[in-house]
Amino acid sequence: MTGLDAKRILIEDVRPAVDGGLYPIKREVGDRVTVTAAIFRDGHDKLVAWLLSRPVGKKTWNRSPMRCTNPGLDEWAGEFTVGDPGFEEYAIEAFCDQFGSWASDTRKKVEANVDVASDVLEGMAMARRALEWLPKKVQTFVKDQLKAAEAYQDPRARAQVLLAPALVDALSGNPDTATRVQSPVFRVRVDRVGARFAAWYECFPRCCGREKGKHGTFRDVEDRLPEIRKMGFDVLYFPPIHPVGFTKRKGPNNSLVAGKNDPGCPYSIGSSFGGHDAIEPALGTLKDFQRLVKKGAEAGLEIALDFAINCSPDHPYLKAHPDWFSHRPDGTIKFAENPPKKYEDIYPLNFDTPDRAGMWNEMKRVLLFWAEQGVRIFRVDNPHTKPFGFWEWLIAEVQAAFPDVIFLAEAFTRPRVMKALAKLGFTQSYSYFTWRNFKAEIIEYFTELTTPPVCEYMRANLFANTPDIFPTFLQRAGRPGYKIRAVLAATLSPVYGIFQGFELCEGVPVPGKEEYQHSDKYEIRVRDWNAPGNIKDLITRLNHARRDHPALQENENLRFHRADSQHILFYGKSLGPDHLLVAVNLDPFEKHHSWVYVPIADYGFGPADTYQVHDLITNRTYLWKGERNYVELDPHVEPANVFVVRKWVSKEENFDYY
Amino acid sequence: MTGLDAKRILIEDVRPAVDGGLYPIKREVGDRVTVTAAIFRDGHDKLVAWLLSRPVGKKTWNRSPMRCTNPGLDEWAGEFTVGDPGFEEYAIEAFCDQFGSWASDTRKKVEANVDVASDVLEGMAMARRALEWLPKKVQTFVKDQLKAAEAYQDPRARAQVLLAPALVDALSGNPDTATRVQSPVFRVRVDRVGARFAAWYECFPRCCGREKGKHGTFRDVEDRLPEIRKMGFDVLYFPPIHPVGFTKRKGPNNSLVAGKNDPGCPYSIGSSFGGHDAIEPALGTLKDFQRLVKKGAEAGLEIALDFAINCSPDHPYLKAHPDWFSHRPDGTIKFAENPPKKYEDIYPLNFDTPDRAGMWNEMKRVLLFWAEQGVRIFRVDNPHTKPFGFWEWLIAEVQAAFPDVIFLAEAFTRPRVMKALAKLGFTQSYSYFTWRNFKAEIIEYFTELTTPPVCEYMRANLFANTPDIFPTFLQRAGRPGYKIRAVLAATLSPVYGIFQGFELCEGVPVPGKEEYQHSDKYEIRVRDWNAPGNIKDLITRLNHARRDHPALQENENLRFHRADSQHILFYGKSLGPDHLLVAVNLDPFEKHHSWVYVPIADYGFGPADTYQVHDLITNRTYLWKGERNYVELDPHVEPANVFVVRKWVSKEENFDYY
Repeated sequence: MTGLDAKRILIEDVRPAVDGGLYPIKREVGDRVTVTAAIFRDGHDKLVAWLLSRPVGKKTWNRSPMRCTNPGLDEWAGEFTVGDPGFEEYAIEAFCDQFGSWASDTRKKVEANVDVASDVLEGMAMARRALEWLPKKVQTFVKDQLKAAEAYQDPRARAQVLLAPALVDALSGNPDTATRVQSPVFRVRVDRVGARFAAWYECFPRCCGREKGKHGTFRDVEDRLPEIRKMGFDVLYFPPIHPVGFTKRKGPNNSLVAGKNDPGCPYSIGSSFGGHDAIEPALGTLKDFQRLVKKGAEAGLEIALDFAINCSPDHPYLKAHPDWFSHRPDGTIKFAENPPKKYEDIYPLNFDTPDRAGMWNEMKRVLLFWAEQGVRIFRVDNPHTKPFGFWEWLIAEVQAAFPDVIFLAEAFTRPRVMKALAKLGFTQSYSYFTWRNFKAEIIEYFTELTTPPVCEYMRANLFANTPDIFPTFLQRAGRPGYKIRAVLAATLSPVYGIFQGFELCEGVPVPGKEEYQHSDKYEIRVRDWNAPGNIKDLITRLNHARRDHPALQENENLRFHRADSQHILFYGKSLGPDHLLVAVNLDPFEKHHSWVYVPIADYGFGPADTYQVHDLITNRTYLWKGERNYVELDPHVEPANVFVVRKWVSKEENFDYY
Repeated sequence: MTGLDAKRILIEDVRPAVDGGLYPIKREVGDRVTVTAAIFRDGHDKLVAWLLSRPVGKKTWNRSPMRCTNPGLDEWAGEFTVGDPGFEEYAIEAFCDQFGSWASDTRKKVEANVDVASDVLEGMAMARRALEWLPKKVQTFVKDQLKAAEAYQDPRARAQVLLAPALVDALSGNPDTATRVQSPVFRVRVDRVGARFAAWYECFPRCCGREKGKHGTFRDVEDRLPEIRKMGFDVLYFPPIHPVGFTKRKGPNNSLVAGKNDPGCPYSIGSSFGGHDAIEPALGTLKDFQRLVKKGAEAGLEIALDFAINCSPDHPYLKAHPDWFSHRPDGTIKFAENPPKKYEDIYPLNFDTPDRAGMWNEMKRVLLFWAEQGVRIFRVDNPHTKPFGFWEWLIAEVQAAFPDVIFLAEAFTRPRVMKALAKLGFTQSYSYFTWRNFKAEIIEYFTELTTPPVCEYMRANLFANTPDIFPTFLQRAGRPGYKIRAVLAATLSPVYGIFQGFELCEGVPVPGKEEYQHSDKYEIRVRDWNAPGNIKDLITRLNHARRDHPALQENENLRFHRADSQHILFYGKSLGPDHLLVAVNLDPFEKHHSWVYVPIADYGFGPADTYQVHDLITNRTYLWKGERNYVELDPHVEPANVFVVRKWVSKEENFDYY
């Protein structure tokens, strides 16, 4: 820093970047990344800059020119497109544009009729010196131009030749590399599009049977595939499918003693039938599972598994690797606790075990095992209670072998911790969506999720409910509430999910808690999947709208627009010519109406233009005009509109013979 | 990153920091620095954290405990105090608080009447293990406590001993160093208080004479010292005092041909009398200068010099170091240009000279030479046209030898460039103050200057005018305008300056430009320093207010408050019990009045409290009550109030015998 370095160019504030480049940004295959930076030097000479990009591990950079977008603020921008899943990296290089600067000055002198004899000599010397580093093809061109200039005696005639744009561009585009400055290198994690855009359906396979009290199987799930796919879901996610422990097995409603036929909690993993790489015999065999993965894929449903680092007292690890667990001074192994609560059916692994390498690599082996069975999505249970460094290592290792693997972090905890897990590698994250029900809080939270820095590294998977969370809103609001939450989940984010039963608007809460009575976590349940009052039709329409409209498949294009009613949330998503507008009455009890304000300028409409908005929920079309329009939403009919905006194109000028 | 590192603690978002720690923050001797960060780990165990600080070069850190200020957001804070001028550094270290976490869990179990036999054994084992790393004194204490616990058989009685705050604090305060995590190291540049707080007076020594047409001398400046000091100035800054070149010397009003007696422009430096380390003979000798520095110091005025890297065609460098200049292909040396304009009396140095070491070290030698004469403030001319790397090196080198040296950057250029110069080492910066005249633009600009990140590295020295800038506002507004700008400069920033003549409200503009006719840059002028209409009394009052009120000596304590009139700017500065409020009518033509809104809660006043505000400009006192109060400002009387806020303390309860 205090050497004699005549550093002239500074590159500051490169964006996008997460924590100044400490963590990668996230993008999906085929995304175009716009990179901006402040690039400037002392004095008034010109600069040229390129955006560099390449897959990590490749030697040569792809170079694309950057352009100055705001000279007063020294802002520059450039773009590159990301390829296959994996890591890519990007950086900026800048050079002093000596010939360009000379040309700009000399042009001014020519225009002011100032003598340019000396300047012309200077320019020619500069061009000649550049021959040292110019690419062959450019060399020939420059030599020809120099000859052409030398053919004249008159300095102004020579200047004419030297100032020709083709020559200036050739020399500016190949500057003296001695002036080169490069920014730090930034990384981008490229995931498949499914990391950003997918509709998830969560179900317990054991609750997919049709006979009361009988343990459901993978074959029962197979039977449900067409119905689930018909609703438009893309991912079918199962809580743990591994052998459930017997010792201290929990009974219905999390009771401490299980009955003889109680299936136990699948999060208490491991028994004499095996551990994390085995399958609960009551569900079927590994072959059955493989068959289900295949059938799912054929139906358009990708299977996602749970990864819960919990061991039942019967897990094989306890015998094979007692050193992987914490031992109390009295010789017993430590079970899970949240003092004074005890979870005696679950033994957590001790990440500080001296056999760290053995344990960590076993976790990796388990995930690779399932990846080899075709599972490429893992929902991770409580990652925030395991070391950050473990996840950073594990995700990198698994994705190095299977770049298309997706990890969803189930961390309902403090914002810093949730964000850190996303930065360290988790592809998707559960979110606070569940507890954001009213207008201001939805706008605040989703503005954070869809703008930098958070949108650069965190993809919120909006679950409307989970086996663990039966939100107060659903408990109190009934069927209109389920509809409201379905619309919000499906349109506020390109990736969202529901847990089985949501589509039936079902559920009895544990009083005063956000938990289900008769939770599928502790007992076998059988449902009528077409029970009256279900909202499967709405969910189907929402999922098809999502599939038909690219605007709903992106995250950072969410924009909230003004609606005068405090109960009506109004927002839009656009991508190219695809414009969606969503109006939701957030009050599940009463009808509300509101003026809503359409961003017509963004759509290219004038204040006097009439256009149509087509509601994908009711299939009705309305003619709207200008910015301010009217909506009326009765939660007992439909609490929301999901409008496609369509220009009214026909005018006499549009006809060929006009 | 992909090693088996069970990293548990993350330290994020350490503040203050400039560009993530790339550049130092700036503070002044004795400042208390509050450092905040997000510090968190996985799981629910407790953390402890310390703030580390030390002068750069020292081995041992000073450690002060940090406290968690917002558990939900994982925010922590700590403080340290900076010492002498130079560089200090700071960092954060955090540890897992294993015993504290155990104590917290065990306390809950004791309260819930759960058996703690096993927990007590665990806690005792933990305390015993800690003996390995505990400091001697703590060891003894812990051993004693362990013995005390062992004396009981009952686990709850043992727990009582182990959970005693003194033991928990001792063990939490000396955690297992194996869990230690440290943030990156951040730097702070500590300057003397004069870097932040000073009033500058700029004058051309040659224009300090009393006889028309006669070149002023250092002795003439000596005669002016008492008067300048009486106005309350701290720094007396001279444009270049070096020999002025003869070749191509400029005449009055920047005319191309100088008359025989014209003194030339002092920015055209160097003649047969010497270069940057010599003194223009017409001003006096080096001895005279040394005497002036001494007399100035005695009077309370510190001399600041200009550092302008310009050479006249007669500068000794041209013969001694022709290779330090750029040569044209026709053999001539390049003079300064701003095409099509030419500055043939100035040759810029070529920073790309092969003799970079020679040239740069000569610049350093020149500054060290003047520093040895007692000059510790350099105003640097046009630093933005020299390489960033040069300034970074030069300032570091000079401050390594003389840590109290202050560098003021005269860079009127694009914001990124001005900010970069400040980040790279300049102590102070000229600013856009000159062109911020109306309410919204003043609030916007000064909010930026007084809040992070800018306030961490940039100190704006607010010059109301300069030899180069005769602002339109002053040209059009006349005497009320000079008063307005004086109040703003003196109270918006702790460091400000005026250029001679401002106090006389003098100046004739070059039509359509912000330049002075008969500029002191090109001719000898003589003024009546007590000419009628001068505002020396106002300036004196302002400077004394600044000296008497610590609140006016800080930068980041500026707060804008509401005033209903669009012409009246209302702001405050507080430091401890010292509260100042300033109301300025920004319209130099018309009287305006306004409701102004006092931040009474910040002062500890209730809405019904009456308090007094004393105007330091008119010496009048007003009784105000509650938040909303009234001001009326006539620019033709006084355009501003500078109020000291005083509590009305006397109440019957304040008497001893109440």
